[in-house]
Amino acid sequence: MPSVARIPTALPAKTAGADVVVLGADGAPLADAEVVVEQTSHAFGFGNIGFDFLPLVGGPAPEGVEDVEAFGTASSLDLETLSDAWLGLFNQVTLPFYWGRYEPRRGEPDRERLRRTAQWFADRGVTVKGHPLLWHTITPSWLAGLPLDEVEQLQRERSRGLTAEFAGLIDVWDAINEAVIMPVFDNGANRITDLARDRGRIATVKLAFEEARAGNPSATLLINDFDLGSAYECLIEGLLEAGVAIDAIGLQTHMHQGYRGEEWTTAMLDRFARYGLPLHMTETTIVSGHLMPPEIDDLNDYRIPDWPSTPEGEARQADELVRHYRTLVGHPSVRVINAWGITDEGAWLGAPVGVLRKDGSRKPSYDALHGLIKGEWWLAPTTVRTDAEGRIRVEGFEGGYRATAGGASADFGLTGGDGAITLRLPA
Amino acid sequence: MPSVARIPTALPAKTAGADVVVLGADGAPLADAEVVVEQTSHAFGFGNIGFDFLPLVGGPAPEGVEDVEAFGTASSLDLETLSDAWLGLFNQVTLPFYWGRYEPRRGEPDRERLRRTAQWFADRGVTVKGHPLLWHTITPSWLAGLPLDEVEQLQRERSRGLTAEFAGLIDVWDAINEAVIMPVFDNGANRITDLARDRGRIATVKLAFEEARAGNPSATLLINDFDLGSAYECLIEGLLEAGVAIDAIGLQTHMHQGYRGEEWTTAMLDRFARYGLPLHMTETTIVSGHLMPPEIDDLNDYRIPDWPSTPEGEARQADELVRHYRTLVGHPSVRVINAWGITDEGAWLGAPVGVLRKDGSRKPSYDALHGLIKGEWWLAPTTVRTDAEGRIRVEGFEGGYRATAGGASADFGLTGGDGAITLRLPA
Repeated sequence: MPSVARIPTALPAKTAGADVVVLGADGAPLADAEVVVEQTSHAFGFGNIGFDFLPLVGGPAPEGVEDVEAFGTASSLDLETLSDAWLGLFNQVTLPFYWGRYEPRRGEPDRERLRRTAQWFADRGVTVKGHPLLWHTITPSWLAGLPLDEVEQLQRERSRGLTAEFAGLIDVWDAINEAVIMPVFDNGANRITDLARDRGRIATVKLAFEEARAGNPSATLLINDFDLGSAYECLIEGLLEAGVAIDAIGLQTHMHQGYRGEEWTTAMLDRFARYGLPLHMTETTIVSGHLMPPEIDDLNDYRIPDWPSTPEGEARQADELVRHYRTLVGHPSVRVINAWGITDEGAWLGAPVGVLRKDGSRKPSYDALHGLIKGEWWLAPTTVRTDAEGRIRVEGFEGGYRATAGGASADFGLTGGDGAITLRLPA
Repeated sequence: MPSVARIPTALPAKTAGADVVVLGADGAPLADAEVVVEQTSHAFGFGNIGFDFLPLVGGPAPEGVEDVEAFGTASSLDLETLSDAWLGLFNQVTLPFYWGRYEPRRGEPDRERLRRTAQWFADRGVTVKGHPLLWHTITPSWLAGLPLDEVEQLQRERSRGLTAEFAGLIDVWDAINEAVIMPVFDNGANRITDLARDRGRIATVKLAFEEARAGNPSATLLINDFDLGSAYECLIEGLLEAGVAIDAIGLQTHMHQGYRGEEWTTAMLDRFARYGLPLHMTETTIVSGHLMPPEIDDLNDYRIPDWPSTPEGEARQADELVRHYRTLVGHPSVRVINAWGITDEGAWLGAPVGVLRKDGSRKPSYDALHGLIKGEWWLAPTTVRTDAEGRIRVEGFEGGYRATAGGASADFGLTGGDGAITLRLPA
């Protein structure tokens, strides 16, 4: 039996194993030798938004956005505090491309600022996602009054243009956001709502995917929604019937009104898993303060001057986040979890949804998540001994790994199921 | 100006007018003569269920249905009381074809009883509708445990067989009932739910329409649902995208928890009208007793030993029914309103939803509806005088009309907009 490097808890859905034969620089099996095996990355997407980094890394916002809704931008925390915390946990970032903020003045996009920020994350090994290409909220004011055909043309150019310009740097996009409610949502005069109502949901989603695909054929394109009921199921079924090539189903779970629990979550995931597509938990929040009252229907309607994070709330948040991440990571179809905020400062609705407090200090939830992502689900450097054929065994989460012996290292990956790997150490 | 026969209130959406030139038996214009004009039928469908008539007209229920859920069967009222009231108001009847009651023992359908009942209505000028061909509730017990492919085959045979057998007598069908919830509704083990979950909603609706259409190519086929939100919209959009030929959209409005009002109703109708299909209000109820508590989610969960009709409730019901019928008839897309019960006796959930009390006496709602359907919206015999060219003018609801002069009568119809009609009286 070869010596085994393995994580303490295996989740059948997300873990893999391999027999690894380690060869020396001469190509001969490294028999009966000590090898240090360690994990270097997760294949699973543990994500968060990176909105806070735009001013810190990208630079000041363009003129014209002063009156456009914004959130997720901490103004007092420095880059070091934020980036240490962020990079310590996460490997996938969501950056904001809301049309009204990205192009507050027609023809003057906020391109370079977004590019610098995306590049900063990419340079640190983080997968960058853009959100969202098509949505009826935060639309630019100059869209008002334009004929629908022109609105459609502009939207098509936007979807195709952004995916093309950022290809290679951003290869994951929410192609469309909240299409279920799109034609009937009443948030004031809004040409995207008008477009969706006139063309119908399926035609609108279709054009969103068509253009994004044309702009970047290898992108991962999501549909994303907060409606997790029959409406979304029906829409997805209609889209699949219409041949729309959805790469992943985005599921929002903003739980400002309370954690929904394991049973609800699993049943919901099973309903959406039956379409055979990867599930991305695109927007996940659990608050560390009081809960929003249950009678609030649209979360946006709850605006209070101060929503504090409390010790009791922080303990509850840590517990619930761990339970929620266990449920999600344990489900075979879930591939990404994006939290919706790193710090409470500037968070959406002013809610204490971060894993950092407003002052940048870490909540119990930070350590709790770290204990999973970089603890229980992570293979720390582990010394094993090869057998007579140079073989060791590695078992852990799907992702990147490194083996080191006699000062030389070689990288390898574990993906799905059980495999056999031959690894040659460099000279 | 010709003399005019017209109803007091014209609803632009549903009324029509025509200049009618009346010719005598000799073919010459009947100049300057008295003509009595009267309406003989409504093109608009004012319907109700006719479940009560099955035992009275069709005969006793087949063996094996004792344990199968049933409603809408008065046991103490006689045929004369029921039929006088029913035929005094309604022109479209819904008859029950719930699989579990229609074929409680495999291969032994309740065909002749249904045929006799349908024929009884057809003989009285009533349009007969069958409900429903495919549904996950009231399925036959012998379906349990069969392989899904066999279940699909049996369902296909049922949908095609029933529409074919009854063609000419029943040409309107709910091809499928409550498809939105079908794959996820939990009402115990049930092979239709299993089928819908396995095949998907669109494939299930498609097979329902395919087979019904094959059985009776000229039938009016409905999709019918109680979900009047985005889910149903999304499903319809997917079905239209998939090329499913829906003839009319069925909208259930069981208002046991209270009348939803004109504003809600109009907004809802507008949402579904944009698909350009006729809307049928398939199942309409307004109670004449206390309201079901708002916290009840599934109406079926509210079972009480006695739900009395009260004087206050009856006054409210009459008022609300009139308001509701005015809203519905006034909407351009609505073509049919089916009430869901003629008498409170044996009504669904025991609710006082009828226009007759349990003892068969008429509630205020009966007279109120009569005042609309056969009063305000009905052209009673009206004497007009032709001009020198034999011309009169008729304005009223779309439907059948009769002109009588000198003991001779001729029938004509008013349909959509304004027309010119030449009518020759027989010898």
